[in-house]
Formats: sequence, structure tokens, C-alpha cells
Amino acid sequence: MFNKILVANRGEIAIRVMRAARELGIKTVAVYSDADKDAPHVHYADEAFPIGPAQSTLSYLHIPNIINAAVHTGAEAIHPGYGFLSENDHFARVCETWGLVFIGPPADAIQKMGIKAEARRIMKEAGVPVVPGTEGTVSDVAEARAIAEQIGYPILVKASFGGGGRGIRIVESADGLEDALERASREAKSAFGQGDVYLEKYLLNPRHIEIQVIADKHGNVVTLGERESSLQRRRQKVMEEAPSPALTPEIREQMSEASRKAARAVDYVSAGTLEFLLDDTGHFYFMEMNTRVQVEHPCTEMVTGVDVVKEQIRVAAGLPLSIRQEDVKMQGWSIECRINAEDPDAMFRPSPGTVTTWKEPGGPWVRVDAAAQAGYVVQPYYDSLLAKLVTWGRDRDEAVARMRRALSEFEVDGVKTTIQMHQQLMEDAEFQQGRIHINFLGERFKGA
Amino acid sequence: MFNKILVANRGEIAIRVMRAARELGIKTVAVYSDADKDAPHVHYADEAFPIGPAQSTLSYLHIPNIINAAVHTGAEAIHPGYGFLSENDHFARVCETWGLVFIGPPADAIQKMGIKAEARRIMKEAGVPVVPGTEGTVSDVAEARAIAEQIGYPILVKASFGGGGRGIRIVESADGLEDALERASREAKSAFGQGDVYLEKYLLNPRHIEIQVIADKHGNVVTLGERESSLQRRRQKVMEEAPSPALTPEIREQMSEASRKAARAVDYVSAGTLEFLLDDTGHFYFMEMNTRVQVEHPCTEMVTGVDVVKEQIRVAAGLPLSIRQEDVKMQGWSIECRINAEDPDAMFRPSPGTVTTWKEPGGPWVRVDAAAQAGYVVQPYYDSLLAKLVTWGRDRDEAVARMRRALSEFEVDGVKTTIQMHQQLMEDAEFQQGRIHINFLGERFKGA
Repeated sequence: MFNKILVANRGEIAIRVMRAARELGIKTVAVYSDADKDAPHVHYADEAFPIGPAQSTLSYLHIPNIINAAVHTGAEAIHPGYGFLSENDHFARVCETWGLVFIGPPADAIQKMGIKAEARRIMKEAGVPVVPGTEGTVSDVAEARAIAEQIGYPILVKASFGGGGRGIRIVESADGLEDALERASREAKSAFGQGDVYLEKYLLNPRHIEIQVIADKHGNVVTLGERESSLQRRRQKVMEEAPSPALTPEIREQMSEASRKAARAVDYVSAGTLEFLLDDTGHFYFMEMNTRVQVEHPCTEMVTGVDVVKEQIRVAAGLPLSIRQEDVKMQGWSIECRINAEDPDAMFRPSPGTVTTWKEPGGPWVRVDAAAQAGYVVQPYYDSLLAKLVTWGRDRDEAVARMRRALSEFEVDGVKTTIQMHQQLMEDAEFQQGRIHINFLGERFKGA
Repeated sequence: MFNKILVANRGEIAIRVMRAARELGIKTVAVYSDADKDAPHVHYADEAFPIGPAQSTLSYLHIPNIINAAVHTGAEAIHPGYGFLSENDHFARVCETWGLVFIGPPADAIQKMGIKAEARRIMKEAGVPVVPGTEGTVSDVAEARAIAEQIGYPILVKASFGGGGRGIRIVESADGLEDALERASREAKSAFGQGDVYLEKYLLNPRHIEIQVIADKHGNVVTLGERESSLQRRRQKVMEEAPSPALTPEIREQMSEASRKAARAVDYVSAGTLEFLLDDTGHFYFMEMNTRVQVEHPCTEMVTGVDVVKEQIRVAAGLPLSIRQEDVKMQGWSIECRINAEDPDAMFRPSPGTVTTWKEPGGPWVRVDAAAQAGYVVQPYYDSLLAKLVTWGRDRDEAVARMRRALSEFEVDGVKTTIQMHQQLMEDAEFQQGRIHINFLGERFKGA
């Protein structure tokens, strides 16, 4: 096991990683930008090293400064957290050349999954379903009709060089196909100067379901069930839960099996997440793989009992996974609310400033992963996540009731937060019944 | 279900009960003494009612004032917490006459278990093992020899009217019995003017093991496994865990079965705890039943997923238990450290004063049940419990590692606390191996 690791991140995830390290008896090194010299993650670490100015391109994203900090402090490994350098295969390779262990997947796996078309190709080869569509553009109506028949209606006709919603037509049945092709192509030509179109299966209000994978260097690949992350605002996840209210044991097993195949196809090691869209007929389609620990990993931890970050560190050190697939059981229900410094009355714009009151909820089955306190200055340079509030219950109703209670205990002054938005969400009848999809929040909250 | 309940307590347990109520959608009434008018439990409640001066006999123990508060605020039920009026059968009966539901066992059950000799008799009748001994005094050597043979050596010869450790002799084998009887009787006569002695089995360094029972008004009695509470200081529990490192599945089932029998023997309803001594041969002996929720109930909650306080409220409202015996499974390991305002360097004397810094641990699998914050005044009138720090792990080692980590995050200034004592305990090799007993702490900490 390592003696000392450097955490190349800030905020709650830096502290999350340091907590795992401390439980494993490993010393930690924090890195910090000028803006963060007094930040909570700096105080939590055993030692801290400055890496440059506030702008993250000059500090948290600046590879030479991170490597220098690691070499200077004698750290043996680097945990990148999420965001910043976590999915940068070049960084993973640089670590290797300096004899530093990158606590994450092999650089090749990051790279393959980072190129979306390549990832899609690998997944298809591995037998993982992707959103069906044409490989390239369609040239005539007969070809389009044949492919549409194969994909199944409704389908989308999309301009190859489109954007901003223009050059897109939803086609409900074969009757409307010819007309849609013609209109989409004409619109695209006039808007983008190029009339090429292609076809893709149209998913009406699908769910975002993701499978947590963890793999070691000894060929063991384990899935830890799913999370549902359908509640998004401008494609940013806002609330997550595990399990998903939509999954049957059969679909869960199919998605898990597909995810294990996907991980094996790129010789994956460490924690990673397969993101899928799920339609209301129980079909799921690969979107992308996140080759890092995710913000919402606590939901999985609460229902499986497995410490995902500790497993990451263990497998990076060459140890085998501490769990076998047959021992993984999802128990009860977990919900995570992201508490962001954002102003719900101003289209959820970031709300930087100084936190004057900070009182976290507590008591039974409430977990807070945070890096804030009274006096904490929310910087405009970094993302607006202040805390992750996580509850567990024996069933979804109990997890929701507990979240409602925990939100009522959370007191933050000085900056605007998303606490009240989450409270509204907990009272939403459709949400309470688990009837959510990726457009749900947008329909309810202005600016969402 | 109730609309409004009054919590006849203060400190962390008052907030614990209010949290359960809030999750169930029930309004809460706090009561407070003059010293507590600004206490956290007052702020947590939906409304609050004053019940008298600081001395608890004039406020938290003053039945007319409590009843008056309930009637005045329109509360339908009273939760007594632990301590104070929680095991007062008279109070339970008074509640009934006022049409208030006492959230606890029937008054008769409290009364029967409150008289220790009576409880011992009922337990023996129900087939629950009690510490073997003579029913009354022994009059001659032959009788003593016969009984001692039956009980098994070592035995204790104890003065019937003794105290302070005088008039007690440990007898290792039949050889020493006559001499011990004579000496104990002579010592007792000279010290207490009365030479009567009796015999009891001597348990060398037994463990304190307790079984959590919960029963409803429909005849369902469920046990939620055991807790080990061997770590005590002057008979006050200091640290608890669930499960116990000492129990085999067979002994666990025997103790659980005995506890269900015991609860049935007194028509028990609500949460209660059967306390046993366990010797190193796997024999266990009933000590007493606590007819209330216990301080250490979170350990049981963490390993079973069952919210003990919510179940109390549910069954008091006449609902059936939400769990069946066959669904109860203990998962992983939980440890609770009691963080008291006490001075370890002054024989653990209470350390009242104003808390100037209060920073609770957080993150994965850490639970804090507390009623303190910066500015909180620790009153000399009430018990010194500031917070219960609870961790969960997949196994005992992980729960201990997490407790070590959580203790390192806990910052309290202004009053002395037992945090450092717990930190020392976590590093103790014998403790780490689970080799503990009721005299363990006394051997390690001065004043313990």
C-alpha cells in the first residue's frame, strides 16, 4: 500500500479522497491555487503544496505544477478526483514517466472512451447496445425508409452539420418520412449551406441510468448496480438516486452484464461509469463511459456498503478488489442532492461570495460530503458544488422523507443555494412516484 | 398517526426523536427548563414550552409541568427519551389519565422490570437464565457446599446487608468455602452488625451484551440483534458496538430467543433492551431490562437499517411493526463513541462551560447525533453527553478505521471532552482484537 498520495483536486472530492486515504493509513498531500490557500481541503491534508494562480488552467489543470508538487513531497501516487485532469490520458501517461501511480484507469482506456465515435464503435463490437441510427448520411428515400424500418419509429432526421435544434425533424411513422427528409435537408441547406441528413432513433423523455463499474489489475470486473441521474439542469446532474425506480432485476442484470463487457473491452481498471439512456419499453443504449469516480458515487456506496474510493486506491496499489460480484447486494435506497452555490431566481447562475452561516444536517442515515464552513469563500473560478447531501432509507419513500428532513436542517447564509429547489422537488408528486426523465427538471424550473 | 407529539427530554435524544417525528410528518413540541431556553432542541422543535427552573426535579422530572405543556399545546402523545421520566410507570399512568399516549411500554411492564427482584423472578419463570445464586441467605456450611456445587466455582460469598466491597469473598474451589463463609460473616457482622451471607456465581471479567427488542400491540415481538456495551466507566457506558465480537450465531439466537420470551412474559410493547452478562464459556445471564430507547440504539440502526425511534412512534399509534423477524439481518459493523464534556485529566469529572469551537466529522458512514454547536453552554445540571459519534464499516476493522478518521475530524474547544480517550482506545491492541470486558476501561484509564 502507498505511504503518501497527492490529491490533484479541490473542494468536497479532495476531502472525500483524503478521508479514504486516512482510513487506509495513507498520508495525503493537498495542492492549492492562490485562491484556495485557506480552503478546507488544504487544512484536511497532512501537507499542502501551492500550484499556481486561481485560474485552473494555470493551477489544477497545469500538469507540470502538479507533477512538481508530487515529486517535491515524495507522493507515490496521484488521485485526480473528478473533473480537472481526471480524464486526461496525457496526464496519466506523464504520471507514469515520473514513476507516479495514476489512481485511475490505464491511459489507453481513458483515450478510447474519450473519443465518442471510437467508444461507440468499441461498444457495438462488444455487443453493448448504442442509440440506433445510420452510420453516415442517408442519400435517398428508399434507403432511409429501409433503415427507419429497422430502427423503429419514432425516428429523428438530423442535419449532419446542424446545431441549435435546426434541421431536426421527428418522424412518427413511415408516412411522414419522405416529407421530413426533404424539409430537414432544405432547412439544413439554408441554415448551414449543407443538406446532408442522417437518422437516429428518437427517445421521448428517456431516463439517464448509469452502472458503476470497478475493476482491478487481476482481471476482476465488478458492477455495483445502477444509479438514476435523470434529474439534470442544462445537462448538469442535480439529484441522483440508487437504485432506479425504473429498473426490473432483469434489466439491471442486462445493463450490468453489458457494462462488464464494456469494461473488459478496454481492459479497464479502477472505478468507471457506463452511462445509458433507458426508454419506456426497457431498452437501453450506451451514451458514454466516465473513466473516473463520479460526483454521485455516494448513492452507490450507501446501498452496497462498498467504499468506491478506497477500492480505487487499493486496486491502484495492485491489490485485488475486496468484493466479489456475488457479494454485491443493493440494500434500501439512497438519494443525493447537490447543494450548489447558485441563484434559482436568476436562472441558476453561480452565486459566489462568503458563506456566513453553515450548518449541516445530521442524525440517522444522513451523509454530508462537503468542503465549506462559515467564513468559506465560494470562488468564481471553480464549479459551484458546495456539498452533497445524501440520505439512505429502507425504501424510496423513507429516503425521500429523510431527505426532506435533512434539507430542512441545512442552513446556509451568505450565498444563494439550490436547497429550496430540492425541497420543492421532494414535494413533487411525479417525483415522489419516481416518474422522472431527462427533461423533467427543465419542465419544472425556469432556467433548468 | 399522531399530528403532534411532545418530547419530554433535552439534548441529543430530544433532537433524535424530533428527527424521527419530522420524517413521519408529525409536528413536535419541545419542553425546556430556564437553563435550556436557547438550547438546540428548543430551536429544532415546531414549538416549545417552558417547564420550570434548571434543576431537573423542578422541570424535566416535574410531571405536572410536562402534562400541562402537552395539554396546553395539544400534543397527542409524549416521547420520554431516555433518563428523566422514561422508566417512571407512574408518569406512564398519569399520561393515560389525561388521554395522552405514552410512547413507551405499558406502565405494568415498566413497573415489573423496575423492581429488580421481581424482574429476576419473572425471568426465571420465563426460562431466561439469571446469574445463579441462592434465593436467600445460607445458614450452614453443608447447605452452602451443596448450592456451590450446583452453581459451580468460582463463587462469591456476599453479605446480605453489605456494601462498598466489604463482606465479599471469592471462592475458587470447595476447599476454601468454609473459611470464606466464616470470614465474610464475621466481617459483615463487624461492619454492618448483621452476619447473613448468600452465594452468587462469580463471573470473571464478563462482557456486557444487550439485545434490542421491539414489540407492537398486535403481539409481534422482534429482536434486532445484540450490542456489546462492555466498555464502561464507573458503570456508565462509554463506547458500544454491534454486533459483539464475542457472539457466535448460536449464542446470538439463544440470547434473542430468551429476550423475546422475556418481552412476552411482561406483555411488552415499544423498544426495550435486555441486558446480559456473558462469560467466556458462552453462558449468559439476565441482569435487567431497560424499558426505553437506549443511548446506544444507533449501533443497532446502522447494522439493521431499522429506525428504532420511528418504530416506537408507529407502535404507540397502534400500527404494527414495519419489520418481521425473518427480515432482520445484521450487515457490517457499527461503533458508537460517546463524546462527553468531561475532563480525562481530572478523573473524568464533568466539564461544564461554553463550547467555542464545534466542528463535527462527516463524509461516508459517519453519523453524528448531537445537540451542540459553537456558543452552546454545557449546563452543570444535566448529563455530560455532547454527541454520539457513530461509524459503520463492512467489518469491525473498517468501522474502527473510520472511527479513528472521524475522531480526528472532531474539533471541540471551550470544554474538555472524551475525544482523546476514544482515540487512545482505538489504538489499543486488545480493543482492536475485540478482547474487551466490563473491567477493561478501569484497567486502562485512571478514574474510569
